[in-house]
Amino acid sequence: MAPPGLEGQYTVGVDFGSESGRAVVVRLLDGAALGEAVTPYAHGVMDTRLPDGTKLGREWALQHPQDYLDVFQQAVPAALKASGVAPEQVVGIGIDFTACTMLPTTAQGVPLCFLPQYAQRPHAWVKLWKHHAAQPQADRINALAEARGEHWLPRYGGKISSEWFFAKALQILEEDPEIYASAERLIEAADWVVWQLSGQESRSACVAGYKAMHQDGQFPSPDYFAALNPAFADVVQTRMSSDLAALGTSAGGLSAEAARWTGLEAGTPVAVANVDAHVTLPAAGVVEPGRLVAIMGTSTCHVLLGEQMREVPGMCGVVPGGVVPGLYGYEAGQSGVGDIFAWFVKNAVPPEYHAHAAAEGLSLHALLEREAAGQTPGEHGLIALDWIGGNRSVLVDANLSGLILGLTLQTRAPDIYRALIEATAYGTRLIIETFEASGVAVHELVVAGGLKRNAMLMQIYADVTGRPLSILDVEQGPALGSAMHAAVAAGAYPDIFAAAKAMGQVQRNVYTPRPAAQAAYDALYSDYRTLHDYFGRGANEVMHRLKAHGRPAEQPAPQEVSPLDETGSVPGEVSA
Amino acid sequence: MAPPGLEGQYTVGVDFGSESGRAVVVRLLDGAALGEAVTPYAHGVMDTRLPDGTKLGREWALQHPQDYLDVFQQAVPAALKASGVAPEQVVGIGIDFTACTMLPTTAQGVPLCFLPQYAQRPHAWVKLWKHHAAQPQADRINALAEARGEHWLPRYGGKISSEWFFAKALQILEEDPEIYASAERLIEAADWVVWQLSGQESRSACVAGYKAMHQDGQFPSPDYFAALNPAFADVVQTRMSSDLAALGTSAGGLSAEAARWTGLEAGTPVAVANVDAHVTLPAAGVVEPGRLVAIMGTSTCHVLLGEQMREVPGMCGVVPGGVVPGLYGYEAGQSGVGDIFAWFVKNAVPPEYHAHAAAEGLSLHALLEREAAGQTPGEHGLIALDWIGGNRSVLVDANLSGLILGLTLQTRAPDIYRALIEATAYGTRLIIETFEASGVAVHELVVAGGLKRNAMLMQIYADVTGRPLSILDVEQGPALGSAMHAAVAAGAYPDIFAAAKAMGQVQRNVYTPRPAAQAAYDALYSDYRTLHDYFGRGANEVMHRLKAHGRPAEQPAPQEVSPLDETGSVPGEVSA
Repeated sequence: MAPPGLEGQYTVGVDFGSESGRAVVVRLLDGAALGEAVTPYAHGVMDTRLPDGTKLGREWALQHPQDYLDVFQQAVPAALKASGVAPEQVVGIGIDFTACTMLPTTAQGVPLCFLPQYAQRPHAWVKLWKHHAAQPQADRINALAEARGEHWLPRYGGKISSEWFFAKALQILEEDPEIYASAERLIEAADWVVWQLSGQESRSACVAGYKAMHQDGQFPSPDYFAALNPAFADVVQTRMSSDLAALGTSAGGLSAEAARWTGLEAGTPVAVANVDAHVTLPAAGVVEPGRLVAIMGTSTCHVLLGEQMREVPGMCGVVPGGVVPGLYGYEAGQSGVGDIFAWFVKNAVPPEYHAHAAAEGLSLHALLEREAAGQTPGEHGLIALDWIGGNRSVLVDANLSGLILGLTLQTRAPDIYRALIEATAYGTRLIIETFEASGVAVHELVVAGGLKRNAMLMQIYADVTGRPLSILDVEQGPALGSAMHAAVAAGAYPDIFAAAKAMGQVQRNVYTPRPAAQAAYDALYSDYRTLHDYFGRGANEVMHRLKAHGRPAEQPAPQEVSPLDETGSVPGEVSA
Repeated sequence: MAPPGLEGQYTVGVDFGSESGRAVVVRLLDGAALGEAVTPYAHGVMDTRLPDGTKLGREWALQHPQDYLDVFQQAVPAALKASGVAPEQVVGIGIDFTACTMLPTTAQGVPLCFLPQYAQRPHAWVKLWKHHAAQPQADRINALAEARGEHWLPRYGGKISSEWFFAKALQILEEDPEIYASAERLIEAADWVVWQLSGQESRSACVAGYKAMHQDGQFPSPDYFAALNPAFADVVQTRMSSDLAALGTSAGGLSAEAARWTGLEAGTPVAVANVDAHVTLPAAGVVEPGRLVAIMGTSTCHVLLGEQMREVPGMCGVVPGGVVPGLYGYEAGQSGVGDIFAWFVKNAVPPEYHAHAAAEGLSLHALLEREAAGQTPGEHGLIALDWIGGNRSVLVDANLSGLILGLTLQTRAPDIYRALIEATAYGTRLIIETFEASGVAVHELVVAGGLKRNAMLMQIYADVTGRPLSILDVEQGPALGSAMHAAVAAGAYPDIFAAAKAMGQVQRNVYTPRPAAQAAYDALYSDYRTLHDYFGRGANEVMHRLKAHGRPAEQPAPQEVSPLDETGSVPGEVSA
């Protein structure tokens, strides 16, 4: 039930993804989205060259900060116009962002890449979350933390990703010391866009907790940073901020310039920045323990609330109050889900299926789903390991790889498609079981992201995990969650719990486990676990040996730059 | 060196395959093929219905005996005409056949399926080698032989195939006793066509040795047969012949009727029947120990000569004098080779490769080979088990299945294509090592069959096995071998050794192992062996569990009868 006096009040939520930003105007009474707009990033993901043609190394992924400002200047006013809401009715604005996506700026927040003298320097640009070129730094960060017994390491499942803040910052220092020296600030893009709205620097405690090892009120010590590299000792003191703001608080009012960009009124409260995955929980009405939110798209991010601090092996991180106040926010992930299906559809489906899909006006995914949907569990005789993109949780090993077992001359594309979907469901079940074995309960799955529209996949997940599946019932879930945080920051709701109760959008128990299928999958899952442990926990190191012999993991296969791919099909939408 | 007096003399070899019969007219002096002709079988392989529409069960594979007679009436005279050789210059005719391919006939050799009252009875027809519906009978044959300690069982690697003679015969008895009762003869098709040529029944000791457990001068005992089924006790005495003819002897002269069919002269010596794989050895000039002949096509058959009787675990059979007199003929096999590649090409290659192949006028196989040929061993990061069609040797387990390991988002079709080829090469190496571990040496591979034209595949086999590869250098290898046996049966050569020396066609050492690649493959093969033993020898029975859950092995996948396959591409020639 919404508090009285909310009639006629709205907030704007802005979700910054990997390829575009989306703005939504939301009604505070019930969370209804009245207007939406999307601005694709003009420069997209820069992974081969800078805008001036400067070549990038392997595993780089950069972005252009102007693309983010375009979202404020284009998507926000467009959504406002579409909603029919007047600027004075908008009581707050909130944002969420991919993380860790970070950039170096001046003390005034000017990105170094905006300065002509640095525009041709790769390290002056935004490092997108999937910039993986800081692996050597991450390896040292982990080895040193383990050797020193740093207390924060177990909170991240025992391993820091190359995607995270200090790996990227250290890479700047070591590969382009001049850029590092000129970087008066190193900042999450999430915090940087809030700065652009409010005119004042503000740092989110949530983002710092998950991506910059901020635990128990502290970043890692200068002593630790010095041991990594003496010049890195003062990275926090000189280039960051220990003054972190809690979620749901205001980072300040909208500046006059940002008011012009967005069409909103100056002084409108701007909420502290949030992470796209985490903000999805209140959007789905999830503000209590036991309900695992799975944001399923290219990859899957799992976020779960718990009442105690538990160190769960192989998980991505746990932060007190990292998602909602008073609860521990746990994060886990599967590195390949939708991208595995997209890889399969693009690279392993013969022409007759393409022709039939085209003739029927279906996506190839929809056709394969239809062809596989009638099978009973195990009918195709296959079992797969979902490591085609490596393993992020529970094993945390990017050098694992995919396996398909049980192939016969009768195996057809829909069989493998279904087996790959099942493999990702087994991976989710193993994450759930690992949480539970550490004392963090999971009794429901709440699914967000594009894959929620694939009915066969959803039923398989219910059957494999033995949990009911609820669905976040809006297109722009993260933007809704950001709009909720804006409502809290504006004081319209007392806290995120109240906002989530009134504004959350969820269809409960859309899919429930079918007992016969569940029993069949129990048997298959048992074989999955055996293979998982055999290949993943050291009994047979063949996958590591193959990676060592083979072409580097992130190097494109030769075929990708051969003419063959010029006419290749583009991976379509993953869902029907 | 050919003996004097062979000028102007020729023989005809006829090779009966699964889909067609080929005739070749060969010059005795040097083995040159002067004329060839092929007659496709009008009824092909009947695996769903009889000619009258009667439906067949799963795993059945029948043929029509008239198709064999058509080969004598069409291919032989056509080859003769093409050669320019006069009938009186042809001194002999020999045949080889797939085995065990068998049929029930009257005492006069009339196939029961030719009799109107039996034409609609499936068991009246020819059971082709790949008729697999007698598995229950084969299982009992094996269990009983093992329980009784039958001395012949180890000669066949400890297991009889459902393809072999007594499994098929017992199936007739048990499923259609009336046909069994009417079958005055049960006979190999190889022997039946010789009977049709000579007008008199003759049975080949070679075929009986490999397919009817004839060892040390005896078939299994009536006592053993009675224990299988009391009505089966006298199967040899009543329906077969213990009077077996050695290879290279004459089964009689061409009958007047057969002379009319073939255009040859009546009385021309007809050689005793042979098996297609075995007759390939003299064609390639292989009449001595240590040179493993691999006939590589849809599947691979390995034939090897040895000086001692060794019981090699997991091999198909060993017969003294079964290939050439005085040596032990060993047979092994890989159930899926070319058909694995064909399965992959048909079912797992995306449209852009099809389009490029078409645009360049290449087969898809040739395109994939070209795309994969530049890779170094291990570059693709994959390893596969070559059990997509089960395992015939060394594990002799049709319920094993295929595995592909090491998949990443960078994996492309040529990578998997190459990995599957490598997997079959690993399988061949394991067969070689198993022979050698039992004291049967292998120092060279001699390759026959369609796959010999795939240069990448041949080099991989040389690198993986560490043996030089020689190539049987004619299109119709088995027919040449049959023509050689005809020359021996006619007395033109004193024995098959002399004939092979003069007439054999082989290019020696066309491919030799490259040391660097060989070393790299040694490492990969070590991983293959570990996986082979882990999944194949009981440590992890997941493949058997998947087969038990899944659709029956030989049942077509649902997609095969869906409209999707009506426009599906046909697997092309396996070689470029």
